[in-house]
Amino acid sequence: MLGQMMTQPLLISSLIKHAARYHGDTEIVSVETTGGIVRTTWQDVELGARQLASALAKFGLKPSDRCATLAWNNFRHLEIYFGTAGAGYVCHTINPRLFPEQLIYIMNHAEDQVLFFDRTFLPLVVKLKDHLPTIQSYILLGPQDDEAAAAVPGLKFYDEFKSDGDSGYQWPDMDENSASSLCYTSGTTGNPKGVLYSHRSTLLHSFAVCTPDGLAISARDTVLPVVPMFHVNAWGVPYAAAMVGARLVLPGPGLDGDSLIKLIDGEGVTVALGVPTIWQGLLNAAAKSDTKLASLQRTVVGGSACPPSTIAAFRDRYGVDTIHAWGMTETSPIGSANSLKHKHAVLPKDEQHKIRNTQGRPPFGVELRLTDDQRQTLPEDGHAQGDLSIRGHWIVDSYFKETPGSAKTGDWFLTGDVATIDPDGYIVIRDRSKDVIKSGGEWISSVELEGIAVGHPDLADAAVIGAKHEKWDERPVLIAVKAADKNPDEKSLLDFYNGKIAKWQIPDKVLFVDAIPRNATGKILKNKLRELYGDCLIG
Amino acid sequence: MLGQMMTQPLLISSLIKHAARYHGDTEIVSVETTGGIVRTTWQDVELGARQLASALAKFGLKPSDRCATLAWNNFRHLEIYFGTAGAGYVCHTINPRLFPEQLIYIMNHAEDQVLFFDRTFLPLVVKLKDHLPTIQSYILLGPQDDEAAAAVPGLKFYDEFKSDGDSGYQWPDMDENSASSLCYTSGTTGNPKGVLYSHRSTLLHSFAVCTPDGLAISARDTVLPVVPMFHVNAWGVPYAAAMVGARLVLPGPGLDGDSLIKLIDGEGVTVALGVPTIWQGLLNAAAKSDTKLASLQRTVVGGSACPPSTIAAFRDRYGVDTIHAWGMTETSPIGSANSLKHKHAVLPKDEQHKIRNTQGRPPFGVELRLTDDQRQTLPEDGHAQGDLSIRGHWIVDSYFKETPGSAKTGDWFLTGDVATIDPDGYIVIRDRSKDVIKSGGEWISSVELEGIAVGHPDLADAAVIGAKHEKWDERPVLIAVKAADKNPDEKSLLDFYNGKIAKWQIPDKVLFVDAIPRNATGKILKNKLRELYGDCLIG
Repeated sequence: MLGQMMTQPLLISSLIKHAARYHGDTEIVSVETTGGIVRTTWQDVELGARQLASALAKFGLKPSDRCATLAWNNFRHLEIYFGTAGAGYVCHTINPRLFPEQLIYIMNHAEDQVLFFDRTFLPLVVKLKDHLPTIQSYILLGPQDDEAAAAVPGLKFYDEFKSDGDSGYQWPDMDENSASSLCYTSGTTGNPKGVLYSHRSTLLHSFAVCTPDGLAISARDTVLPVVPMFHVNAWGVPYAAAMVGARLVLPGPGLDGDSLIKLIDGEGVTVALGVPTIWQGLLNAAAKSDTKLASLQRTVVGGSACPPSTIAAFRDRYGVDTIHAWGMTETSPIGSANSLKHKHAVLPKDEQHKIRNTQGRPPFGVELRLTDDQRQTLPEDGHAQGDLSIRGHWIVDSYFKETPGSAKTGDWFLTGDVATIDPDGYIVIRDRSKDVIKSGGEWISSVELEGIAVGHPDLADAAVIGAKHEKWDERPVLIAVKAADKNPDEKSLLDFYNGKIAKWQIPDKVLFVDAIPRNATGKILKNKLRELYGDCLIG
Repeated sequence: MLGQMMTQPLLISSLIKHAARYHGDTEIVSVETTGGIVRTTWQDVELGARQLASALAKFGLKPSDRCATLAWNNFRHLEIYFGTAGAGYVCHTINPRLFPEQLIYIMNHAEDQVLFFDRTFLPLVVKLKDHLPTIQSYILLGPQDDEAAAAVPGLKFYDEFKSDGDSGYQWPDMDENSASSLCYTSGTTGNPKGVLYSHRSTLLHSFAVCTPDGLAISARDTVLPVVPMFHVNAWGVPYAAAMVGARLVLPGPGLDGDSLIKLIDGEGVTVALGVPTIWQGLLNAAAKSDTKLASLQRTVVGGSACPPSTIAAFRDRYGVDTIHAWGMTETSPIGSANSLKHKHAVLPKDEQHKIRNTQGRPPFGVELRLTDDQRQTLPEDGHAQGDLSIRGHWIVDSYFKETPGSAKTGDWFLTGDVATIDPDGYIVIRDRSKDVIKSGGEWISSVELEGIAVGHPDLADAAVIGAKHEKWDERPVLIAVKAADKNPDEKSLLDFYNGKIAKWQIPDKVLFVDAIPRNATGKILKNKLRELYGDCLIG
């Protein structure tokens, strides 16, 4: 017997309709690619999105056609998020930091029909355009621009293109399992793979993002997604902000510490989201300025493990609470987020901080588990390390164009991360499976060793790899970048580990380099480091 | 084209599985019907629910069979919530305060197969049982009890019945639109009507309950639902608490102020939910005691309009924030909840309080609108009063056993409330459509006049009706119950309205009575009052 309640699909259009209807005058603050701030509202965004949807229909797009973006976080990009998905097209956000050959692969694989791009990426588009046979139209995010028009024959301009649309356009009804958006993984090896989100997965994820144990976003927040809108949908913030009518501050291309401080203080940002390196940049700049980051209540950090020193700096210097979260493109991305439980309230502060340094626990909607090499389930005791799997409402089932279920191992998606889970569900990501250092049968976390090294005042950056070793199979080696005007020696860096980890986990060697190689999303290219330095302990 | 994400149904069993897995040791504190406190955990509740589900299957229940409850808020009732719905049966909670003939009507209409009941209701069950042909088994919520066994032949006992169940029982998979639970409205006229919730509607409602602009329930909360579990699923709290792993305090039968203070202080309750009369009782008792309600952060008030004086008393005396919410059985029940927006932060406190006194705004998932007598949409300007309609994911489509869509007027459910909506979406419930006083073409809210009267120190209770009037059609009359040892006169009560409302809205007359007649859920029986006093201004 079925219930007798109204049923309606969970659609992205319903998010923007809600925001426009109940939070119509709430501001969207947007830094233009060319500089300067534009202020719009949720009502403006919905109107713009409807006009865009209408213009795309007039242009001849068919349901589920992919619309690609190469764009910063700004209001036009936000309109595209809602205007494409709301109308039944697929919003395909692309990471412009990928190599050109990867970009070409991705756009051809996705069969993108139009490409929206910010002025910044004009040279890139010029370079790529002869290799993109499926793209019917290039649309510059901005007004008419003669120089750009000369560089890309047939170029359209967003403001003009959109104005062809009908402002009376009504959002269509559709199956809530319809595809809504597409992100490709930026793996460190192999071709990128597409994750095709649905309206339903996006909306259920948005609910989890908003809950108090998620990222706790409300109508009282001014949210600054520093995490790019081309990186897992800016962790779902555009959708979540529409769901609750939060004020949004979109930072455009300037993601350096000084620019962010100016935005945070100037716009009264209450919550900001980004990767650890962004926050390190912000904290460094803040230390040199007189800002108190007075409005800022919380930072959300993900993308890679956040060094405890960063969390402590926010807390102790600025009274800012850091929500440590974990996820990936395949998980929409929230797989876990950190908040305490009722029983933790009585713990001493130090114990609370220890829990807050973990990547948190899964929200309702996803489940986690650990397995060993034989895919046997491991205990969740906070000690056993194993391969982390996840399943739930917003987890990939198969990559784009692959067969149903092909991204799964049994019922689960195997994340490629090695983690521990404690009895309360708090996870600690120890490493990527392929980066964990297997020394004499024990596993050493390269991520943990890096986190400690980064806290050393004389280092600017650090990576740790397992180098081949005759006796122990692998031993950790620290690859370090000195801070400006600092000159630490090997001994002082290795001594820094004393008391922080077990003696046998301390690296065998330090190599100083000028820079750590990273991929387009800032992940350390460990395979490259292993290629270069993996033999440094033998021969 | 569909998305390529995992899909799984939104099921109530997934809530209790999540709570058991990630909040297994979080306490459920339960006051026994016979006195004393029992402490269990989410893990215990899930185990009990699975055992119960198995026992019900062995007993021979078929999918969607209705399991009725006549019970207080306690851990056995909680197990029944999850054990019945999780297994694909329908949890039918019944308000024991209804008249016996209504109870008989409801249970026969629902075709209940089993009836779980608390010891308190043994005399009631004895009285009803010969009129309930569909009930196959009566199950007392507790251990073996000889007196009860003698009174109800064939009586079973919950603890024993459950222990027949298999603790290895696994929750079944099913359509998320399956019926999960059933509540009958307690209208002031006509036969009660059943609202048949689905798993999907319940889960989407739970998300809305948990969000920061809903009731903001998290794993750091200790939640006291004073609102009964037989009253719209205790406003969804059991489900929402499981979703986030909140600690629950279930108060059993003792809902007087002193008992509640003891529970709040003794168990460190952070959020408590109930109707205005409960809070008035609590505040009266608190004023006479030395409690500071130190742990209490918020109260949630709904069921009827909360007098501003109650909200102010919580805020000014105890630093407790009151979330004023609105809903009904047909709306699961959250139709709106009160929290400020970002832009309100700069307002003077007085202005903020004024907004907080309204019933709040709709969360994502529902929409509201106002219409006039011709069903034309009215402006949402904070002034126009009209009939309030609602639609969304957790709103009734048709009453139980009625034809699809029959509870709707167009796409909407017409609530029977008269309200205003301001441009930010904040609603003020002015009255029930049938109780609003139509005086000389203008509408006067009886609810507003009652709210003011209840704030008078010399009154214990008050009601306002429209009495027939030769010139103005109707004029308001205040029906008042004096506080103990107080003796206010008509003039002092009418003077109390000066400056609080427009002069022409002040009642024409005061009638003193010993008690205001109320229905089973505490709603004033205005039709009865109109019968008695509707002619007091004529002849």
